[in-house]
This record gives sequence, C-alpha cells and structure tokens, in this order.
Amino acid sequence: MSNPFFKNTGPYNINFLLNNIGSKNQSINDHEIIDIKDLNSSHNNEITFFHSKKYYDLARNTKASFCITTDNLKSFLPKTCKPITSKNVLLDTAKITQIFYPDSVNDNFDNSADYIDHTEYKDKVKHGKNVLIGKNVKIGSNCLIGHNSIIEKNVSIGDNCSIGSNVIIRNSLIKNNVHILDGCVIGKKGFGFFPNKNSNFKYPQVGIVIIEENAEIGCGSTIDRGSLSNTIIGKNTFLDNQIHIAHNVKIGENCIIAGQVGFAGSSTLGNNVMIGGQAGISGHLKVGNNVQIGGGSGVIKNIPDNSKVMGYPAKDLKNFIRENK
Amino acid sequence: MSNPFFKNTGPYNINFLLNNIGSKNQSINDHEIIDIKDLNSSHNNEITFFHSKKYYDLARNTKASFCITTDNLKSFLPKTCKPITSKNVLLDTAKITQIFYPDSVNDNFDNSADYIDHTEYKDKVKHGKNVLIGKNVKIGSNCLIGHNSIIEKNVSIGDNCSIGSNVIIRNSLIKNNVHILDGCVIGKKGFGFFPNKNSNFKYPQVGIVIIEENAEIGCGSTIDRGSLSNTIIGKNTFLDNQIHIAHNVKIGENCIIAGQVGFAGSSTLGNNVMIGGQAGISGHLKVGNNVQIGGGSGVIKNIPDNSKVMGYPAKDLKNFIRENK
Amino acid sequence: MSNPFFKNTGPYNINFLLNNIGSKNQSINDHEIIDIKDLNSSHNNEITFFHSKKYYDLARNTKASFCITTDNLKSFLPKTCKPITSKNVLLDTAKITQIFYPDSVNDNFDNSADYIDHTEYKDKVKHGKNVLIGKNVKIGSNCLIGHNSIIEKNVSIGDNCSIGSNVIIRNSLIKNNVHILDGCVIGKKGFGFFPNKNSNFKYPQVGIVIIEENAEIGCGSTIDRGSLSNTIIGKNTFLDNQIHIAHNVKIGENCIIAGQVGFAGSSTLGNNVMIGGQAGISGHLKVGNNVQIGGGSGVIKNIPDNSKVMGYPAKDLKNFIRENK
Repeated sequence: MSNPFFKNTGPYNINFLLNNIGSKNQSINDHEIIDIKDLNSSHNNEITFFHSKKYYDLARNTKASFCITTDNLKSFLPKTCKPITSKNVLLDTAKITQIFYPDSVNDNFDNSADYIDHTEYKDKVKHGKNVLIGKNVKIGSNCLIGHNSIIEKNVSIGDNCSIGSNVIIRNSLIKNNVHILDGCVIGKKGFGFFPNKNSNFKYPQVGIVIIEENAEIGCGSTIDRGSLSNTIIGKNTFLDNQIHIAHNVKIGENCIIAGQVGFAGSSTLGNNVMIGGQAGISGHLKVGNNVQIGGGSGVIKNIPDNSKVMGYPAKDLKNFIRENK
Repeated sequence: MSNPFFKNTGPYNINFLLNNIGSKNQSINDHEIIDIKDLNSSHNNEITFFHSKKYYDLARNTKASFCITTDNLKSFLPKTCKPITSKNVLLDTAKITQIFYPDSVNDNFDNSADYIDHTEYKDKVKHGKNVLIGKNVKIGSNCLIGHNSIIEKNVSIGDNCSIGSNVIIRNSLIKNNVHILDGCVIGKKGFGFFPNKNSNFKYPQVGIVIIEENAEIGCGSTIDRGSLSNTIIGKNTFLDNQIHIAHNVKIGENCIIAGQVGFAGSSTLGNNVMIGGQAGISGHLKVGNNVQIGGGSGVIKNIPDNSKVMGYPAKDLKNFIRENK
Repeated sequence: MSNPFFKNTGPYNINFLLNNIGSKNQSINDHEIIDIKDLNSSHNNEITFFHSKKYYDLARNTKASFCITTDNLKSFLPKTCKPITSKNVLLDTAKITQIFYPDSVNDNFDNSADYIDHTEYKDKVKHGKNVLIGKNVKIGSNCLIGHNSIIEKNVSIGDNCSIGSNVIIRNSLIKNNVHILDGCVIGKKGFGFFPNKNSNFKYPQVGIVIIEENAEIGCGSTIDRGSLSNTIIGKNTFLDNQIHIAHNVKIGENCIIAGQVGFAGSSTLGNNVMIGGQAGISGHLKVGNNVQIGGGSGVIKNIPDNSKVMGYPAKDLKNFIRENK
C-alpha cells in the first residue's frame, strides 16, 4: 500500500509536524516520523489518522506510533499508538500529508514527458503518432499505445496491454493483458479538499491506481488515484464507457459495470458484481460478492453478498418490481 | 446491413464451424457457409442465431440456411433453416462470428493512420493540426476536421461535415451535413462479452455506426458500433454532450436528446422523440414515435407512440406529476 | 454582459430586421438597432425579447427600444420599449441574433490556432507538446498548459492557471488561479435550436464562459457558453469529473459539485451549494444559497436558501429519508 511513486520528503520530527498543525497537545518527546498512512497500512514510527467510529476495528489494531484523532475516539487506540487529539482530524491529516508529499496536491501536466521515439520504447512498443512517455515509466512486452496518448511519469504497464488513443495515464500500475480504451484519464488526483471560503484546502492524493490483469476500461472513463490508500480495479473486471471511479474505490474481480456508472470515494465492491448503466454508488460503502445492481440505481447503504437490488435508493429487487407494477 | 468494413474470412464448411463450438448435433451434410448475420438480414447459405422467444416473428421468416438455437425454440424456424441446437446460443454465436471476423473483437489503435498531409485529403479537406487518416477512408467535399482528430480506417464521411477536435472515428458511415463535436469517440466496439472467470470471452462487434444527414453529436459522446447489426443515428437528430449510445441502438429522425443520456444496447427509438437530460434507456426496448421522456427517467419497458413519460421507472407523465405533488 | 468576442455585424435598421423575420407588425419608423440582448442587459437602441410571464419583472424594467414578444405579454413592457409581436418569439429572436452574429451558430474548429512555439507565449507559458493557441488569446503570468491542449481564439486566461492535457477552450474568460483538468471542453456552443423537420434551426450562441478565481474543473467536463447571456462558474467553486454545464447556467461561489452532475440550461445556483454525484438540475431554475442536494437527485423546481433536498424529484431531505426507511 505504500506509494511507490510520490517522493516522501520525510522523516520529520513529531514536534515539527505538530507545530505545523498548531496542535495544542501536551508536550511529546522528540520522535522521527517516517511516513503517514491509513490505519491499516501504517507501521512503527509512522503517523496515521482515525476520524470515525466506523473504523474502530482498524484503529484497535493499528501499528502506527501516532494517530491524529478526537478526544472521543482516542480510547480505541492500542497503547503502542499515541493519540494526537485534533478538532479537525481530516484537515490536520491533510496538512501533515502535504508536508510529506508536497507534489501530490496538484495535477499539473507532466513536463518530463517526451515523444516515445526519443525513449527506450521507440521500438519496443507498437505505438501511434504523437505518443508521450514520462520519466520512471515501465512498459512490458507486446504492448500497444494509440495516437496522442500520454503515459506520464510514474506508470508501470505490464505485458500484452492495449492502450487506446487520446488516453492519459499517471501514477498507475497496469497489470498484464489490460485494455484501456480511447479517451480515458487514469490516475488523476481525487476530488478531495477541505472547503474554505475563497480558496479550498486541497487534500493530498498520494495513492495510485492499480488495474489488475485482464481488466478492460471503456472509452472516456475517469479513474482517480487514491488519497492515502489506492484505487483498485480487480482482475478481469470490465468497465463500459464514461464511467467515473473516485479515489480509494476498490472493485473486485470479474465485475461487469455498464456505461455511465459513477462511484463516489472509498467504496469497496466484492467479486462478480454486475451494475447496470447510470447507477451510482455513494461513498464509503461496502458492496458484497455476487451482487447485482439494476441500471439507474442509487446505492446509499451497504449491500450484502448475493443480493439483487434496484431503485433510488436501491432496495431489494423484488420489492422494487412489486412497488412499481 | 452486411458489414462493409470488417474482412469476412469465410466461407467455412458447416461441420468445421460446428466442430469449433464443440457441437453435439447429429451429423450434418457438408455445406459452405458464407457469413453469419442476424435473423432478419441473413440469407441462403448463411448461419444465424435465435435465442429468445421475443424474436420468433423474425425467426419464422429468416432466410438463413442454419440457425443456432435451443431445443425449445427450434420449432419456430422455417423448414428451409436447419437448427443447430446449443446450450449457450450467444456464446456459440460469438465463437462462430470470431471465426468469420477475427479482427472485430478488439479495438487496437489503427496503425495505418497517417498525417492527413501525407494523404489525398491534404488539400481537399480543411483540417487542423495533427489530423490522422487511416486506410479506406472516404471524405466528401467541403468538410472540416479539427485538431488532433483521428479518422481511423473504414470510415466514410459525406459532404459538408464538420468534425471537431480530439475526435476519434472508426468503422462508421457519416452522411452529409453531419456535425460531430469535440472529443467524441464514434464506432468503437460495443460492450459485449460472455462473462468467464479470469478472462471474459469478447463478443465480436462486426457492425458499424451510421449517422444520417444533418445529425449533430455533442461533445464527449460515445457511440459504439453494432455487434451483428448496426448502430444508427437518424436524420436531423441532435445529441447533446456526454451521451452514451451502446451497440445496435437505432435512433429515428428528428429526435432531440439532452446531455448525459445513456442507451443500453439494441434499443430502437422512433422519430421525433425528445429525451431530457440524464435519462437512461434499458436494452432491447422499443420506444415509439413522438415520445417525450422526462429528464432523469429510467425507461425499462417499451413505450408506445405519442406517449409522455417520466420517472424511475418511467411511467405516464400525468401519473408521475400527480404522485409527486 | 455584452459579448467581448463575437463580432457584431450591426447596426441594422429595424425594418430590415423585421423584414427578415417576415413580421406583419404595423409600419414602424426607421431606427438603427445596435445590438440584441436579453431583457436585463439591453439598452437604448437595442432590441430584446420577452417570451414568458416568468420574466415580467425584467420586462417592466428593460431599457431596450424594441422587444420581440407576444400579444399577451406586450402590455408588461415600459412605454420606452416598442413591442414587435411574434407568433414564435424565440425563433424570431434567433433569426435576428443570427443576423447580428453570423459566426456564433456553429463551432467549427479554429483554423487560426497555431503551435504555441510560433506565438508570443512560447517562453511565457510553461507548456507541453503540441499546444495550440488561436488568435486574440491572452494568457497571464505563471500559467501551465498541458500536452495537446487547444486554446482557441477569443480566450483570456489569468495568472497562475493550470490547464491540463487534451483540453479545448474557446470563447472563455478564465480568471486567476483556475485549474482546468484533463480532457475538458470549455466554451463550445450550447445545445440550442428550433426543431424543424429535416434540418433544425440552430440558435446563435453569443455568450461566453466565465470561470472565476480559484475555481477547479474536473476531468472530462463540458461547460457550454451562453446563448444571449453568459455561463458562469463562481469563485472557488470546485467541479469533479464528467460534469456537464449547459448554456447560461450561473453557479455561485464556494460550491462543491460531485462527479457526473448535469445542468440543463439557464439555471442559477447560489453560493455554498453542495451537490452529490449524478444529480441533475433542470433548466431555468433558481437554487438558493447554502443548499445541499443529495447524490442522484433530480431537481425540477426552485430550491430556497439553506434547504437540504434529495430524491427524484428532489424533496426535503427529511421527507426523503422518512419515506425510504
């Protein structure tokens, strides 16, 4: 889960970090902090954050040395994790993340990208006209990249992949046999910020996009990279055109997602999920395995395994049909 | 309806084809099969498929010599059409189509496309920078093609057409006076495949997109080509931005379709249909002439001529208004 | 509100204009007409239009010398404004607008655009490969423009702006510190025309797009320019990916609009409005300040300040929750 691409400018002393967020916490011994991560993936000498009771199971088991949290939640943390109390956990998390990863806030175009014919991939990759390749890009064997496509810095593409034309990819890990069709934008920063009059405070987006083997992404789709975790499209999952996948969404294997479906941030889908066109999935939800979601549905709560739902808000399919006879 | 663009690698002997789908049909006399088509457009010495009772009217009148179908449905076929029984009609149809049209499964970028200044259209077409033209492209008089647009192989464009910038067109027939605005992707393969663990089996997409005279397609829209039939946008029909039209959809004349509307596959619209923004039309439906569909509606059943509907699911407009007072 | 970009070919004599719309109005003294504008922004020696009782407050106070309107509505006009009665106010308005602004009807690609390295911005703007700049473009200091982006004629960009890759902008005024992410199309003509069998009559789109300071526009969004007024995105308003904003929409300051939201034409949003993903806002509505609209909602009537709504059609959030328990 640790980000392979964004440069971590740390370590930083915990008191330097606390100073930057104006923390009023009691004095804390000097301690070198290596990184900031989510509850689940953080380790010793790292800082994490915990802002909602929903995550208390993860909080109880975190291995982080420090955790930005609230007075109410701090008691859930293990003794090995020192609470840093905050009145705005997410904003302080964003500020500290921005210290570690100053480059992850904006998505300015990749100035390092150059024509593929000036790179080592000139003859290794079958490519169209005007293809650009950034720094730190790896491309496997037997790949195709269409006209005008831009593989920005920090992208790894496996073997036998077909990238269409007018595609933009950054901060992404594309496994073998993946097809990305024309006009997709993969790996841009998520839509995350703290509202602030006159000038919002942008949340760092340190995660990446991972697209597993055999997946296919339809034309004009946008898949945003994660903020502190990653955005993942599972193995052999197929997306139709004009789909929007927000940051931190994790989609399982063998899913089928029809056109114009949208995911808000941080939801998780199981395997073998089928979603009809134009359905929307709210944020921070869990959709189980083998779920079928009817076209146009609006999913606003968790859905257990093997369910069939439809409607806005989405309900059991049988009820939807009965009520709409 | 026969496809003018994909190369048919046939004919094939019927027993070779049956062997490829592992058919257990009783022995059949050798017979050269020229092509595979849908029930309606197939002829003598061709093979077709029949998988749902919905199409029994077409099945009774098919002119195909062979038809992949089920034990239950085979009795609807005329005596001139020999049934090939199958436990998975669509999958077997896909497999046979892939034999005839091996190039129609994927949408790899068109490697034959070259800069327009290297083609016969250098001076015939008023064009922007970096325009690419593939093989077997025809462009009429008085056309405009904007910057970075790619007219891939197998496209025919009529007279007085205006193609915007960043547009991609392939496998399409564009009639006179058509306007295609910036960022559209026209003619990509449809979202059709048979789910298969670890690696889906892609359905061949042999059809094309036909855009009739005076039509206009808004920015960022995607129109997929047909699988075994064609996708058609009727004369003087106007589409707004970010519309998605799936394979085999047929839209009539003088229709007005607002932004972000989506069509699932194989539905048919009559003439003079008006559709409000973000409405969705499910697959395999028939929407009549002079129908008005309110914005945001979800259409999941056929709609007769002259109806006004709204809602999710879409119902008579008067009922929708009364129920939502 | 007067358009800075489209060339006004006037003045025209009022009787010349009336002749062009086949007006049967009684004889009118010769009078030079300078321009055509909406009720609110028109002045002396200009012509305006008034087609719906909704606008009678604006009509009573118009400063225009002439107004295209109906027999029923003409009594609302002040004595200084002479009514031109019409059986189809909007069509006649369109016809006269097309006389004043013949270039505003279509959106053919900007043939004047040239590579940025051939322009004064070669070294002033940090730019990617293959960037095109049209005539009459102004770009402030410290701006970035990504690969393949096209700044067509008649665009003004402020300081510290970041334009992504594959972006197309025309007829727009972009203020300071604005971020426009990859693949957006800003300033294309709106979806406006009068249905007409065989060949629709396109409505002139003379307005522009104004994006105020600190705003951010997500990937693949489309913002259409106004017809007779402008389309405006307020200060520090953030739009997520794949959003569609139709002509004449005016969005206030500090708004947050999630992915795939769509606006029909001419609606107005207040400040501090939050809209969840995939919501749709119908045309000609007024949404107040501090309004929250749930994801997937369909807004079909005005919403007063400080409301929270959800549903299709959108209703008070508490009612939506209670009814869907």
